[in-house]
Amino acid sequence: MADGITAQLAAFICSFDGGRLSPDQIVTAKSCILDWSAVALAGRDEPVSRILREMTSSEGGTAEATVIGLAGRLPARAAALSNGTTSHALDYDDTHFDHIGHSTVGVFPAALALGEALGCDGKAVLDAFVIGLEVACRVGRYLGNAHYRTGFHQTATAGAFGAAAASARLLRLDDERCCHAIGLVSTRASGLKSQFGTMGKPFHAGLAASNGVEAAKLAALGFASNPQGLECLQGFAETHAGEGDAQAAFEGLGEAFRFDRVQFKHHACCHGTHAPIDALKALRAEIGPHVSNARSVTLRVHPQWLRVCNILSPATGLEAKFSFRLTGAMALAGRDTAALDTFSDAICTDPELAGLRERVKVETDDRLGSIEAVAIVEMPDGSRIEHHCDLAEPIDAAVTRARLVEKAQALIGRPATATLLETVDTLDTGDGFALPGVLSSLAA
Amino acid sequence: MADGITAQLAAFICSFDGGRLSPDQIVTAKSCILDWSAVALAGRDEPVSRILREMTSSEGGTAEATVIGLAGRLPARAAALSNGTTSHALDYDDTHFDHIGHSTVGVFPAALALGEALGCDGKAVLDAFVIGLEVACRVGRYLGNAHYRTGFHQTATAGAFGAAAASARLLRLDDERCCHAIGLVSTRASGLKSQFGTMGKPFHAGLAASNGVEAAKLAALGFASNPQGLECLQGFAETHAGEGDAQAAFEGLGEAFRFDRVQFKHHACCHGTHAPIDALKALRAEIGPHVSNARSVTLRVHPQWLRVCNILSPATGLEAKFSFRLTGAMALAGRDTAALDTFSDAICTDPELAGLRERVKVETDDRLGSIEAVAIVEMPDGSRIEHHCDLAEPIDAAVTRARLVEKAQALIGRPATATLLETVDTLDTGDGFALPGVLSSLAA
Repeated sequence: MADGITAQLAAFICSFDGGRLSPDQIVTAKSCILDWSAVALAGRDEPVSRILREMTSSEGGTAEATVIGLAGRLPARAAALSNGTTSHALDYDDTHFDHIGHSTVGVFPAALALGEALGCDGKAVLDAFVIGLEVACRVGRYLGNAHYRTGFHQTATAGAFGAAAASARLLRLDDERCCHAIGLVSTRASGLKSQFGTMGKPFHAGLAASNGVEAAKLAALGFASNPQGLECLQGFAETHAGEGDAQAAFEGLGEAFRFDRVQFKHHACCHGTHAPIDALKALRAEIGPHVSNARSVTLRVHPQWLRVCNILSPATGLEAKFSFRLTGAMALAGRDTAALDTFSDAICTDPELAGLRERVKVETDDRLGSIEAVAIVEMPDGSRIEHHCDLAEPIDAAVTRARLVEKAQALIGRPATATLLETVDTLDTGDGFALPGVLSSLAA
Repeated sequence: MADGITAQLAAFICSFDGGRLSPDQIVTAKSCILDWSAVALAGRDEPVSRILREMTSSEGGTAEATVIGLAGRLPARAAALSNGTTSHALDYDDTHFDHIGHSTVGVFPAALALGEALGCDGKAVLDAFVIGLEVACRVGRYLGNAHYRTGFHQTATAGAFGAAAASARLLRLDDERCCHAIGLVSTRASGLKSQFGTMGKPFHAGLAASNGVEAAKLAALGFASNPQGLECLQGFAETHAGEGDAQAAFEGLGEAFRFDRVQFKHHACCHGTHAPIDALKALRAEIGPHVSNARSVTLRVHPQWLRVCNILSPATGLEAKFSFRLTGAMALAGRDTAALDTFSDAICTDPELAGLRERVKVETDDRLGSIEAVAIVEMPDGSRIEHHCDLAEPIDAAVTRARLVEKAQALIGRPATATLLETVDTLDTGDGFALPGVLSSLAA
């Protein structure tokens, strides 16, 4: 067992020392928590968030963990289910392209809930979160593009492994119990991309988080699973079309980190639409507003996105977030793609955008990276102008943080952002764990 | 949507009329409940049952539904998780070879918990259970052998669809809400065969039941999923190696029933080992006890079982249940394969059985049915005797019931069996729903 992938993950979970993180990595981890908190607070009244709160609060139970939008507390597993879903309701949270999914929403709600339930301090929660995020990214990479292409949603699947890792750390499971937690979550994790555009998608983040809490709690109570359930014959990876490139996925685990290559969203729609939007915004900045007179607009993207965010004629605000053509039309027309309320059902029948949308054509190019796009505009005079955007180019952690503070201010206002920021900045220095109480009062 | 598979299932769930069942079909449905109850009561102190009760009772919550082995009640979703796991802990419950899995354990705990929580009468619970069982069998067939061979465990997967169907019926969801419940469970269902031989396997029944309750409750609250999540492009069937033969699976749904071809277990081990055991018992009856001197013993089975119950050298009582060679040795040696305590860790090192086991050879023959086997014994004098057993040959419902009463008496004693039998027999005639209270007091 000592040589297996799960055993390697367990050793990482047990032996991780937060002191080895660089200052920038700590800033990035805190940026994830800041952005997660702002997006979750802003999404607390979405229909899917309300539905999850209604079910979990009607079940009730031991008052262990804060549920955003609820006065009382609930058991950690229920809180993780509800908060995970709530934080992904707007689809405005971070993503990671090793993970191939939304990274923080599957993991942090588990660490938040269990950290509060167990009375851990903020430093322990931050460490557990980093562990979980790193595991989610590594497992997401291990499952790979083939898993995603086949129809699985890594936010739910790789996310559950990350949530189990974070939970195992907070429960102080030993190596063997960690393996059972990971083995158990291998038979529990689920989530399909065919739910995109429905409430099923945000629910996946809740599933990841609660499945992780559940697996670690059961392992702590002595539950024995197949401790190689992830990597074994007919294990999770093999049965779920995982690529299984262990070398690429787990190399350097514990020595080097990948979680800090997380990408934050600055448009309130699917991350796959971000590079094309940024490319079109650059063209609009260059050409001016009359870019919307373009005779034709071509977007070149990696083929993986065709089944994700290429809804040709969206009918709802939610579907609009998964439409290259409509979000492209919005960028050309200078609409505010960062504002939540832009993505209403009405945007789908907006006459200007409907006209523009018809001129937007999507092409694929598998030489492009996942978060790379080329936008080509052909103007009525026959001139062609193009712009290339690659979101993978690194950005300074402090610059990113400053942009996220602005985003939070737009989402939840300046006073709430200031309170959040102070709480997150001091997460690992104080004695207690103030964040759950702060989230609860900001949501009230 | 009206032509889709899910729409067909929803129409069946909403329009099913229990009055169309034949008297034999009602006997069989009640036999499932009787056998489930006895097996669940007998399994209530297994380690995995205790662990699930410990987790769910520490979470607590609204006192809605009976948990076998617990004094108080818990929310229906938690009760379904715990009772589902408990009832499969002994692996002694019924199976169905269309379903390709354990049929009642995934479905009945959902109907039991939600029936009690909603204050339904026994007739409504029986109807919901039959609906759920039929849906589980049909969906199991739709997923087919390919799904099972790839590594998925239909008890967990098809079971969750059955549990969602039963729950949707009890919640009186309309056609559209039923479709959302089924769509939602499509992104929630999970369970891998690589957990066989661990606590993961019984947990799968709990997962099926609780996932079904959850999906129906969320749909009742307005949760919108992909309402074709089962059959759509990259839906559950396609992503999970489903065969997708809709014609074979759903033909005659609502007109004719398949649930009543359920198979009950009379040996306390994997159902795959039953036909070989029965064949060897017949040979022992014919040849006498010196059959254990056989020079060699060949078991011919369908190849599907090789990855299920062919553990060559089991080390625990649980592993022994999945070993053709050891259970075969037990049958040859005249051991009581019906008694639970036969399957101890000690049986794996029993010297007589260890010697016999080495002489047992397993061969596959894909012309055999799933529950068909040929046993061939070669005696020291060179003579060869063989016996063929096919469990698919129909048995009268009343005969089956009588055998199950005997089995229940052996498991939980005569007085408890008498109480259970009376409760189950009058399930659909009285006003209330007495079973939860009876199970609670019999477990106390």
